[in-house]
Amino acid sequence: MLHKVSLGVRDISKYRLLLAGELIDELERLAAELKGVRICHINSTPFGGGVAELLSSYIPLVRDLGLDIDWQVIYGDRRFFSITKSIHNALQGGDGRFIRGEETQRGYKSQSLLNAQEMDRNYDVFIVNDPQPAALPHFSDEAQAKWIWRCHVDSSEPNEEAWQFLRPYIEEFDAAVFTMSKFVPPDLMGPRIATMPPAIDPFSSKNMPLPRTLCRELLQNLGLDPKRPLIIQVSRFDQWKDPFGVIRVHRMVRQEVPGLQLALVGSLAGDDPESMDMYAAIHREVDKDKDIYVFSNLTGVGNMEVNVFQTACDVAIQKSIREGFGLVVSEALWKQTAMVAGNAGGIPLQMSGKLSQYLISSEEECAEKVLYLLQHPDIAAELGQEGKEHIRQNFLMPRLIKDELSLIKSLLQD
Amino acid sequence: MLHKVSLGVRDISKYRLLLAGELIDELERLAAELKGVRICHINSTPFGGGVAELLSSYIPLVRDLGLDIDWQVIYGDRRFFSITKSIHNALQGGDGRFIRGEETQRGYKSQSLLNAQEMDRNYDVFIVNDPQPAALPHFSDEAQAKWIWRCHVDSSEPNEEAWQFLRPYIEEFDAAVFTMSKFVPPDLMGPRIATMPPAIDPFSSKNMPLPRTLCRELLQNLGLDPKRPLIIQVSRFDQWKDPFGVIRVHRMVRQEVPGLQLALVGSLAGDDPESMDMYAAIHREVDKDKDIYVFSNLTGVGNMEVNVFQTACDVAIQKSIREGFGLVVSEALWKQTAMVAGNAGGIPLQMSGKLSQYLISSEEECAEKVLYLLQHPDIAAELGQEGKEHIRQNFLMPRLIKDELSLIKSLLQD
Repeated sequence: MLHKVSLGVRDISKYRLLLAGELIDELERLAAELKGVRICHINSTPFGGGVAELLSSYIPLVRDLGLDIDWQVIYGDRRFFSITKSIHNALQGGDGRFIRGEETQRGYKSQSLLNAQEMDRNYDVFIVNDPQPAALPHFSDEAQAKWIWRCHVDSSEPNEEAWQFLRPYIEEFDAAVFTMSKFVPPDLMGPRIATMPPAIDPFSSKNMPLPRTLCRELLQNLGLDPKRPLIIQVSRFDQWKDPFGVIRVHRMVRQEVPGLQLALVGSLAGDDPESMDMYAAIHREVDKDKDIYVFSNLTGVGNMEVNVFQTACDVAIQKSIREGFGLVVSEALWKQTAMVAGNAGGIPLQMSGKLSQYLISSEEECAEKVLYLLQHPDIAAELGQEGKEHIRQNFLMPRLIKDELSLIKSLLQD
Repeated sequence: MLHKVSLGVRDISKYRLLLAGELIDELERLAAELKGVRICHINSTPFGGGVAELLSSYIPLVRDLGLDIDWQVIYGDRRFFSITKSIHNALQGGDGRFIRGEETQRGYKSQSLLNAQEMDRNYDVFIVNDPQPAALPHFSDEAQAKWIWRCHVDSSEPNEEAWQFLRPYIEEFDAAVFTMSKFVPPDLMGPRIATMPPAIDPFSSKNMPLPRTLCRELLQNLGLDPKRPLIIQVSRFDQWKDPFGVIRVHRMVRQEVPGLQLALVGSLAGDDPESMDMYAAIHREVDKDKDIYVFSNLTGVGNMEVNVFQTACDVAIQKSIREGFGLVVSEALWKQTAMVAGNAGGIPLQMSGKLSQYLISSEEECAEKVLYLLQHPDIAAELGQEGKEHIRQNFLMPRLIKDELSLIKSLLQD
């Protein structure tokens, strides 16, 4: 049997305090119509990474709506996950990273067959996340159920060879869901296509409201001066997030705002030599600079500290050059923090209206916007408010639940 | 040049709120006597691990006392750190882990020579942490300075071959400092021997006071029920911390305390396959059990969340079978939390007086003590108070500063 992740139930009615009651009413109506339908999410890991984080918030809320929803995790050995990781990277257009060869592909197929045999099939709808379990419908003889593939990466320009290997499996699904319509590979034929951006959990430790005094104290205890202005970037230590660009932006702005502090906050995996090297290089660069701070999970900085930084800073930067969806933008805006961010991936979706004036494409532009916001705190506050409202309406969990349940309903009506 | 870690200054006078003013006065007197003495700590990493955490808290406080103290980090490639890691493990008595062979030992020596050439020597006292930089005095021609070796591991029963390789280098130091006297290898001759237990930083995000309401909310947001009793263990996922024993203890106690929750909270490195395997095995074991929760840095749980768990739980367990010092015991006691812990390593030092009745050597004993404390919250509260007082007097940073400055003073008087 595949492993089922045990999760409790979380009170969806808490969202009535945040959202118009109509949305929750609508969710309850949808759930009533789907009463008795058994739904199962499938992915490759119960912990670590954005998908597991999302499912951990999402499933307990759907259960509270009275629906029967579970989460199964596929098995795989090192070889299997090497090939799925290479498919994953190749889907995002990574060059030359797709593991070629009949033998590795046989490994993917045989492990998928095993997983198909081991899975609990007593469900009416399967939602299969990302490429790792994507061959399950092919190897399962479960023809009664509806199968949905949920792609969480930017697959708009996939490595051709990897995509042609994966595509026949995807085309066996009843529906394929992408984060944004521009992420849909152009030659995908067969499944119904839907788009659903991800969402944040406003009650998680990363997003829950924290007292201002606590935030100030934490900054002080981490060595920062809560009385001086602070800009931050929260991101993986990765070239596409351009941390060195952020450091240069800080140095430009500091000429006009003496004492300006910068905190780079992120997480990294010890088994990822690229990000470890970059982390060490950043440390070497900024350890000489007493206004720049670097924090990571390696020094015990977790979700609550990220929350503190996003809540307490004056301006948040997300200087991405390439981006998937960039949900960290929603996290910062949810705290009414003004944001200056790269015009990449899903970031523009999250910065509509006046916020879109703070989408940037160069270091100079970034520095200019950050400086302007630091010098005009009233405008920064307005933007923060507008941002929070935009996230409230579009990027909280209930909207994602509505999207997914609506798709399930329409598939079952076919 | 070796890399110097940049750290600010932190206000030592904050400790006057926590400690008898006499200790801070004494520190100030000691610092005045050492005025002008240039001190430098040396270790192998600016971030990650207990030594870096300690130095990050320690050095800014010593600076605030008016002393000239820096921190240099040695260089090394993968080969160098493989051999130092093997020495490190072998010092703790790990079997067959010491990398033998002339060639690897040459690698250690040649890198140590390089580091000795690259280090900034303009200091009067060097404090060299752990085995990685231990050959520096041998390869440095700095004869004027005083050299202190600071050993942070339990080296009481070292692997003989590794220790005989390391011993000549250690014997060139002026002093060798161990965490406890029983950690001193019996045949170490030459340097003055001192013992100094480590200490916690009560102002760090892991130990700062957090509002009760925030703690309750976080537990709820993580899926726990703040109204039901909670026991925890905070530790690495490692056989010597016996997490499966803790799970069995929970199941025994739960028979008497229905609804009792257990949270296992820890951090692990993605590049450590042993701990990753254990983490996955624990997940498989407890995911079926709706009263047991597992949290780690892989799911964004950091120092503040650890603080919340230690503050909000009813009883903390540290069921170590083997232990170095086990500073996590001090962390939990500092939050006035009653503690049941294995009689191993430095744990008994931290649990003196009445607390020592809660040192345990078996699962049955552990379950019995935990049950007793859950059923006698008044006694748990008393123990928590006594524990906090014991930590306040013995295991906060200023005591460690006093120990180290006193040793430096006496070495300089020689």
